[in-house]
Amino acid sequence: MSDHFDLIVIGGGPGGVAAAIRAVQLGAKAALVESTHWGGFCLNRACVPTKLFAATLDRIKTVQTAAKMGFSKAEAAVDPAAVFKMKDELVGYFSMGTEGLVKAKAVTPIKGKGRLAGPGRVAVGDKVYQGKSVIVAAGAQWVRPSFPGADLEGVVTSSQFLEEGKVPGRSLILGAGPWAMELAQFLGACGSQVMVAARERGILSEFDPEIGQRLRAALKNDPLTIFNSCQVVSMTKEKDGLSAVLSVKGKEETRGFDRVIYFDRQPALAELGLDTVGLKDLGVNEYLATKAPGIWAVGDAVGKEPFLSHRSSTMGIIAAENALGAKRIFNPHTVPRVAYTNPQAASVGLSEDQAEEAGYEVLAGTAAIAASPMAMIQGVSHGVIKVVGEKKYGELLGVHILAPFATEVIGAGALAIQMEATLEDLARSALPHPTIAESLSDAAREALGWAIYIP
Amino acid sequence: MSDHFDLIVIGGGPGGVAAAIRAVQLGAKAALVESTHWGGFCLNRACVPTKLFAATLDRIKTVQTAAKMGFSKAEAAVDPAAVFKMKDELVGYFSMGTEGLVKAKAVTPIKGKGRLAGPGRVAVGDKVYQGKSVIVAAGAQWVRPSFPGADLEGVVTSSQFLEEGKVPGRSLILGAGPWAMELAQFLGACGSQVMVAARERGILSEFDPEIGQRLRAALKNDPLTIFNSCQVVSMTKEKDGLSAVLSVKGKEETRGFDRVIYFDRQPALAELGLDTVGLKDLGVNEYLATKAPGIWAVGDAVGKEPFLSHRSSTMGIIAAENALGAKRIFNPHTVPRVAYTNPQAASVGLSEDQAEEAGYEVLAGTAAIAASPMAMIQGVSHGVIKVVGEKKYGELLGVHILAPFATEVIGAGALAIQMEATLEDLARSALPHPTIAESLSDAAREALGWAIYIP
Repeated sequence: MSDHFDLIVIGGGPGGVAAAIRAVQLGAKAALVESTHWGGFCLNRACVPTKLFAATLDRIKTVQTAAKMGFSKAEAAVDPAAVFKMKDELVGYFSMGTEGLVKAKAVTPIKGKGRLAGPGRVAVGDKVYQGKSVIVAAGAQWVRPSFPGADLEGVVTSSQFLEEGKVPGRSLILGAGPWAMELAQFLGACGSQVMVAARERGILSEFDPEIGQRLRAALKNDPLTIFNSCQVVSMTKEKDGLSAVLSVKGKEETRGFDRVIYFDRQPALAELGLDTVGLKDLGVNEYLATKAPGIWAVGDAVGKEPFLSHRSSTMGIIAAENALGAKRIFNPHTVPRVAYTNPQAASVGLSEDQAEEAGYEVLAGTAAIAASPMAMIQGVSHGVIKVVGEKKYGELLGVHILAPFATEVIGAGALAIQMEATLEDLARSALPHPTIAESLSDAAREALGWAIYIP
Repeated sequence: MSDHFDLIVIGGGPGGVAAAIRAVQLGAKAALVESTHWGGFCLNRACVPTKLFAATLDRIKTVQTAAKMGFSKAEAAVDPAAVFKMKDELVGYFSMGTEGLVKAKAVTPIKGKGRLAGPGRVAVGDKVYQGKSVIVAAGAQWVRPSFPGADLEGVVTSSQFLEEGKVPGRSLILGAGPWAMELAQFLGACGSQVMVAARERGILSEFDPEIGQRLRAALKNDPLTIFNSCQVVSMTKEKDGLSAVLSVKGKEETRGFDRVIYFDRQPALAELGLDTVGLKDLGVNEYLATKAPGIWAVGDAVGKEPFLSHRSSTMGIIAAENALGAKRIFNPHTVPRVAYTNPQAASVGLSEDQAEEAGYEVLAGTAAIAASPMAMIQGVSHGVIKVVGEKKYGELLGVHILAPFATEVIGAGALAIQMEATLEDLARSALPHPTIAESLSDAAREALGWAIYIP
């Protein structure tokens, strides 16, 4: 194996895999360096495992609500050990599949921890490879909370929780973002006594506020407790678990837990050798170029949330093309955010507040899911579809959904934003009936003042 | 109540309701004439009831497959009587809601059977109303099969089946279109012995052939039998049901059934008074105008399949606008077809064959659902996403899906076709991971020769 490449990609997660494959497709000789698991964090520790849990939660709910939906008998008992085993099998299968894909696409895989070693040089162990360009797709790493006792054994990352493969009796979920809420709902359905400590005033705070508010209403019957503005003051080890002093809206209270799970991550910059190319971080311009010539960066390593697999892979394709001479722009506004809660949340583009802050004269329209025939057929009454546009040109700026199938429905919103659709384009779509998606059109018509199905 | 209107709409189904509301929004005085049920055939006899059955089928399948998906115990018994009762409640609720909506939107509702009575005149019973324009949205009517014995008591329309509200012991389903296949799967899951007599060589023959072929493979474990090129030769009454002589691929065989259900419909033109305005049918131009001045027509009454609620409502909005002076074109290629089978089928635009017949140099790309992470999470292995485009400008021409959530996923395809997206636009979408929708992008990349996730 020669050690000279047109492109060397550091990190075999979604961003790196897409980048390396795209580079080979464009005629380049490309290497992909990965130290642990092919497929990266998403495949091994996030998207695939947590979405299997979400699908399991949906199954549990289907059975739980069956008596109301025309079933004379419906009983089911989830077996968490079997779900964890399925998770391991799926992850193993996908990881092997990713390795096979990389090889089938004629990417040169290099096993080991890659680091920059000067311009055009990537070191893996003792060996140094030459790359005309380098894409850093090294991902993120865990950020341990700062409260006293955060280093106790029962305080774990969501990855460690997955490795343990057990449903804790009492769970404290630190944060109320997508992964946190997905796991909270799943653990609650599996019988854990779950408490969510939301740092901000709401849940899913990175979505339009209406999404979090409506999800909260939907969760009223879920076996979990959510505290707003809640922080851990300190944690101590007790005989039968952890004792946590919590500050809830300024008042302290003490509670016992078996596991405390945290989710915070930040770019994994240490040991990347950034100093050898004169960089302090992996900030990129719209072409995904860092400030160091020939060095590009994508995905979680770049450090702008949200950390999303499809954001990383989209960036990976663009960075590979640009590294090989193209001048393509990455537009973050076309990347949807998703939460596989029940009901699901998804959004793309600007929230109403963000649009106003950006100076637009905003036109917003809302269709309540309670009035959607498909939602009624599904037995679901909580949720909303909200469309945000602007008055001057009628441009569509954002789509926000809390509903069954939201992560699939948002595809139409993403296409609309990408194609620079107007509110009127969306208002005139012939989306199928009965679906959740069809409410997109009526929400757009509502924004324009001519909703058909909203009284 | 004055009997002079700017617009009179005949038929209170999806097309008529949308047309009348849109007209009022544009400042017109509009009347809506309906003889039986507000909401029309879709709401009362098709979309809503059959999709409730489809959702019930999904629930049954969820329980049936739970043992493979991490459950230690999963049992459920559907109670068809309870499902039929839910159907009645839902339909009643939606129908009342439609009547309320029509009134809230300041449309003048007129109860009775409307018919044309000369230019600008609509008769309802003895009363004649004057309308500057008239939109005919009178829907379709049943077409009884022509075999001897088709008038026997047990040979029923799908509406009659719904009214009976019972699962037959042995069911013969005449045809293999969307409704027929939806009902066949539901009845099979409810314990009926189901046989599907497909007239054509495949099922869902109005979709791209790959959809029907793959659905057939998916149905292999469903308790139903499908015969290709099957026709009823004759039917006779027996003591314990109906005896049917069937021609299956040219060979005759005799079988017993309790109910024979048919689905064929054609425009309901009789008693519409078309002759009073010099019309023989309700054929329309691209503006939805008939050949008679001031008379417009939409929906199933126009006579071009597919009969779809969202097609009718889209036409209704456009016809109302044009009746009041606009010049808007109805583009049938943006209207998705859907089948709520399990897995679901959905498509929009041209099939590969249709594109070739239209003279395009076709680029097609296919992503197998078996390789989709979300499909694996859902425990589904049968299905496909197919994208059809053309080489010269790279234009996207069609999207075809057999997959879980297909009826929601097709929204992205519909938006893409409507916005005249190219294959490259779809290839570069950042559709969320893990979803079924994300395979749209890889299918588009496959069509362009640079699939990332297809080896």
